[in-house]
Amino acid sequence: MTELIRPADIEKRSMEIISAELQERKIYLPEENAAVIKRAIHTSADFDYAENLKFSPNAVKKAVFALKAGAYVVTDTNMGLSGVSKPALQRLGSVVECYMADEDVAREAKERGVTRAVISMEKAARLHPNALLAVGNAPTALIKISELIDKGLRPSVVVAVPVGFVNVIEAKELVFETCLRHSVPVIAAMGRKGGSNIAAAIINALAYEGADMQDPAARY
Amino acid sequence: MTELIRPADIEKRSMEIISAELQERKIYLPEENAAVIKRAIHTSADFDYAENLKFSPNAVKKAVFALKAGAYVVTDTNMGLSGVSKPALQRLGSVVECYMADEDVAREAKERGVTRAVISMEKAARLHPNALLAVGNAPTALIKISELIDKGLRPSVVVAVPVGFVNVIEAKELVFETCLRHSVPVIAAMGRKGGSNIAAAIINALAYEGADMQDPAARY
Repeated sequence: MTELIRPADIEKRSMEIISAELQERKIYLPEENAAVIKRAIHTSADFDYAENLKFSPNAVKKAVFALKAGAYVVTDTNMGLSGVSKPALQRLGSVVECYMADEDVAREAKERGVTRAVISMEKAARLHPNALLAVGNAPTALIKISELIDKGLRPSVVVAVPVGFVNVIEAKELVFETCLRHSVPVIAAMGRKGGSNIAAAIINALAYEGADMQDPAARY
Repeated sequence: MTELIRPADIEKRSMEIISAELQERKIYLPEENAAVIKRAIHTSADFDYAENLKFSPNAVKKAVFALKAGAYVVTDTNMGLSGVSKPALQRLGSVVECYMADEDVAREAKERGVTRAVISMEKAARLHPNALLAVGNAPTALIKISELIDKGLRPSVVVAVPVGFVNVIEAKELVFETCLRHSVPVIAAMGRKGGSNIAAAIINALAYEGADMQDPAARY
């Protein structure tokens, strides 16, 4: 029973089940966003993501285009960093980074009395102003990203999917509205749900699309 | 708006919200399992975990005791590894490991035609036969753990929380039943839901309890 079933077969079957259940629930996903939404459901077994993921116009297309041009990905957790497929990014000439554990980030956060997530996003803006910013944990990161966009930052996409009960909904709504206002592509999980696993799943869906990487065995 | 709010205050408020909503839903958690269940909800904003997490008798108490005795934690994903609080484990004299990316594991999996998750659990059984095994991804890891327990392995606890649509429910039911039969402590998310984030959240809840680590700022 522990023999190798091809990961591609398991994923194919899983995606078929997800598609069938979406149909049963009479949920029809826009074609351009379907791969991202289905992968969020695949990683959580939570069909709420069919309803709560919101996309600015052409966000997926623009994010995939940026990845294919080698734009960096920056996450706000090392867990998100771990979950992103390195082979897929490598094929695109992209790299994923997380600055949360950096000593300079910790020091500056302490000095200024803000979260490390805030400083790590400032560092991302400085080093990779066109990065894909994937936030799965810290609402303060989203508030900082909103400020930076208002001041002129133009990330390739903001993936705004922190999970939580305090300040999270407001921060996601703020960054979504700010991105729309400045035509910055944005993908957000409205409401409380999200997490580093969802951030990684969304980045992976974009990367697999960009790298045309349909076989799961190649991804890790 | 990006000033530092104390993480302890945010977590306290989040846990209060979770407790209040559980009460509204007329869900009363057994005292001994409440910290684990609430942390799974905290990490996912998904109240389904109040219903689908199942515990063998005294599983939490026994797992905390093992951590306090310095038992290792072994996960089946590097994402789970990333999500576990190293300071909490350090305080307990424990360590978390993941063998999924090890070269010898990849080689043997290929030679034998099984998943890396299977070989990584065999390696865990060999190196740390009393480890806490935290499985958030691979049903094949659970099937292998069931076999090993039938042959005499006695892990300190099995955290069986893979997510997925194919073979996952069956593997969780199998390992739960095997653990009960051999009096091995087990915590499982029945049904489809789970994930590396849930595995890490459960290990963290156990570790915070063992290390008496109530202040989130100390955990990362």
